Amino acid sequence: MSSRTPDLLLYSDTRASADLLYLGRVEVHDAFIALRIRGRTLTVQSALELGRVRRTGRFDVVLARDACLERARRRHGPKAGVAEIIAVLAREHGVRRFRVPDDFPGALYRQLLRLGLKLDFAGGLLLPEREAKTPWEARCIREGNRLCAVGFRAAESILRAARIRGRRLFHRGRPVTSESLRFAIDVAILEQGGNPQDTIVAGGDQACDPHERGSGPIRPHELVIIDVFPRVTKTGYHGDMTRTYLKGRAREVQRRLVATVREAQRRATREIRAGVAGRDVHAAVVACFADAGYETRHTSRGSVGFFHGTGHGLGLEVHDPGRISPTNAQALKLHSVLTVEPGLYYPGLGGCRWEDVVQVTATGSRPLSRHPYVWEFR
Amino acid sequence: MSSRTPDLLLYSDTRASADLLYLGRVEVHDAFIALRIRGRTLTVQSALELGRVRRTGRFDVVLARDACLERARRRHGPKAGVAEIIAVLAREHGVRRFRVPDDFPGALYRQLLRLGLKLDFAGGLLLPEREAKTPWEARCIREGNRLCAVGFRAAESILRAARIRGRRLFHRGRPVTSESLRFAIDVAILEQGGNPQDTIVAGGDQACDPHERGSGPIRPHELVIIDVFPRVTKTGYHGDMTRTYLKGRAREVQRRLVATVREAQRRATREIRAGVAGRDVHAAVVACFADAGYETRHTSRGSVGFFHGTGHGLGLEVHDPGRISPTNAQALKLHSVLTVEPGLYYPGLGGCRWEDVVQVTATGSRPLSRHPYVWEFR
Repeated sequence: MSSRTPDLLLYSDTRASADLLYLGRVEVHDAFIALRIRGRTLTVQSALELGRVRRTGRFDVVLARDACLERARRRHGPKAGVAEIIAVLAREHGVRRFRVPDDFPGALYRQLLRLGLKLDFAGGLLLPEREAKTPWEARCIREGNRLCAVGFRAAESILRAARIRGRRLFHRGRPVTSESLRFAIDVAILEQGGNPQDTIVAGGDQACDPHERGSGPIRPHELVIIDVFPRVTKTGYHGDMTRTYLKGRAREVQRRLVATVREAQRRATREIRAGVAGRDVHAAVVACFADAGYETRHTSRGSVGFFHGTGHGLGLEVHDPGRISPTNAQALKLHSVLTVEPGLYYPGLGGCRWEDVVQVTATGSRPLSRHPYVWEFR
Repeated sequence: MSSRTPDLLLYSDTRASADLLYLGRVEVHDAFIALRIRGRTLTVQSALELGRVRRTGRFDVVLARDACLERARRRHGPKAGVAEIIAVLAREHGVRRFRVPDDFPGALYRQLLRLGLKLDFAGGLLLPEREAKTPWEARCIREGNRLCAVGFRAAESILRAARIRGRRLFHRGRPVTSESLRFAIDVAILEQGGNPQDTIVAGGDQACDPHERGSGPIRPHELVIIDVFPRVTKTGYHGDMTRTYLKGRAREVQRRLVATVREAQRRATREIRAGVAGRDVHAAVVACFADAGYETRHTSRGSVGFFHGTGHGLGLEVHDPGRISPTNAQALKLHSVLTVEPGLYYPGLGGCRWEDVVQVTATGSRPLSRHPYVWEFR
């Protein structure tokens, strides 16, 4: 090995690969080649992307695809394509071995082996440095969470002003629905420079499926989960926060559910610090729910109780590296950014989830999200 | 082979793989296993997704991941994971060979070979049936294009009402910018059930980089390209249309540019019918521009003239199967849906692109997009 940092090879687009966005800091929506050789990054771009990538990206070298293809054809014949371009570049740089991401395209992998390259799968993170976030990245994520709070305020002002008529809610003469709340949230986020994606506004039993986006009328006296995870358009970093609401009068069982989930979130957050295993933080949530008598059961029709991880890394991806889950024995990394989002889900009673974001420090964590926990609107 | 349709294996999520969305018709945003064995589709889902996928998807069989993992561990030991689950399912169904997409994750590919499975790369489309669109799919795409037109109308009403003061435009006392137009477009699309993604509003020289989203003030008397490609939230299908505008007074060179691109679009559309090679349609555009004296040049700083494909397939992906490009010798497929989007780009003069969508028929094509070509607002 000529250097300590491994030489890398990627072939994907920046929507599918946050690693590519991290390396180049420029969005390209069709698959392209990127290499890191002896610490220098190099990419091959079509005529369509070349100028923009050179001007706004931070790759050290940006090569024109047409010129590379020409060289590949001279060496490998007229049918040369992506694989042959990579082989030619590897040869020109005197590299025979690359580390590739685990999801490197299989067909290209096989072609490159046949062209004599050696490829090692990362077996986890290709860029482990992505897990710990710099102060600039933490600010980007904080901005994402500010956008979440903007969305919550839009929803809250509607819930606060809404009127209950029988089993329905009305705002300015129109029924309040998952769709109408989502629209208000998404517009507020868009206006402030975010790109909201698949915002969840799920009430009643819909909320018991944590990935259900929600549809139809919001009912009074029922719990409503709002989970917002917008992308900051300028930087590509995300926010991710969840609040639970209820318009009308909460029953005692609902109040207890909501308070218990909030308590579990506090306990989990207290456990977090660099070096603690992700699963130990998760175990604190499980214990909290068990102590309070909330059972988790898996049935053929789905699960009830608490059946998802407590948190995940957040950054260029909504699910960035880092997990607070029952299976993650690894230690939380210093300066990594994680969501803390326990939840309880019981059809008939409803669902509740609170989600905030922290950055791991040596002695604990610092919050990167801020919004009140007021949830009951009479 | 026990059947004529090949047995398929996929491992991805529905954001990265339109094939998965096509097979299952339900969105799942973390990677999961899907198989098609003897024509029946089967998927493995975590507790988090199980209920929703069973209820709203159209996989024939939805298995619980925990139960599958348990079986894989019994057979392959405690470290069993995705590969071992696939191996167990293949064994249970008596299948040893699968066709996989070309971008099947390389690390999993290698693991499965070691577990004794045989995997064939599709070498192109995994689901060739995705290229021709059913009448229902054509309606979904038409709806996407209706949303594009909704966006254009929002932008046009601002451009029409805007006032010119020196080198700036003002609307309701505020400067008109790429950002303010994009916001108006995106909100209008969101309100009608679409998810706008990376809407392009690029004026002046910015528009000469066809993938530049645009930022800052929109200048009077300059060409502005607006390219909108929203996703219809309910179905996942996209629209994709482009219009070019100018607020103020167009110069004769701008008028000629705009008219020439429109003429090229008409000529390309006239060439389209099932069986014609994609590159022959593209050649009609190239000839049209050459006849009119518009040169294409590639420089180290980028390209000028016409330097992208004439069109691409449209469907569950913005870039769906099917290409009208200089390199595509394949015949356009009956009932495929394609964009037709010639453009010309000259820094100093500006850029122009017109983009519409057609469905290929035996004798020509039928339009799936509709919006006027009025571009000059005094």
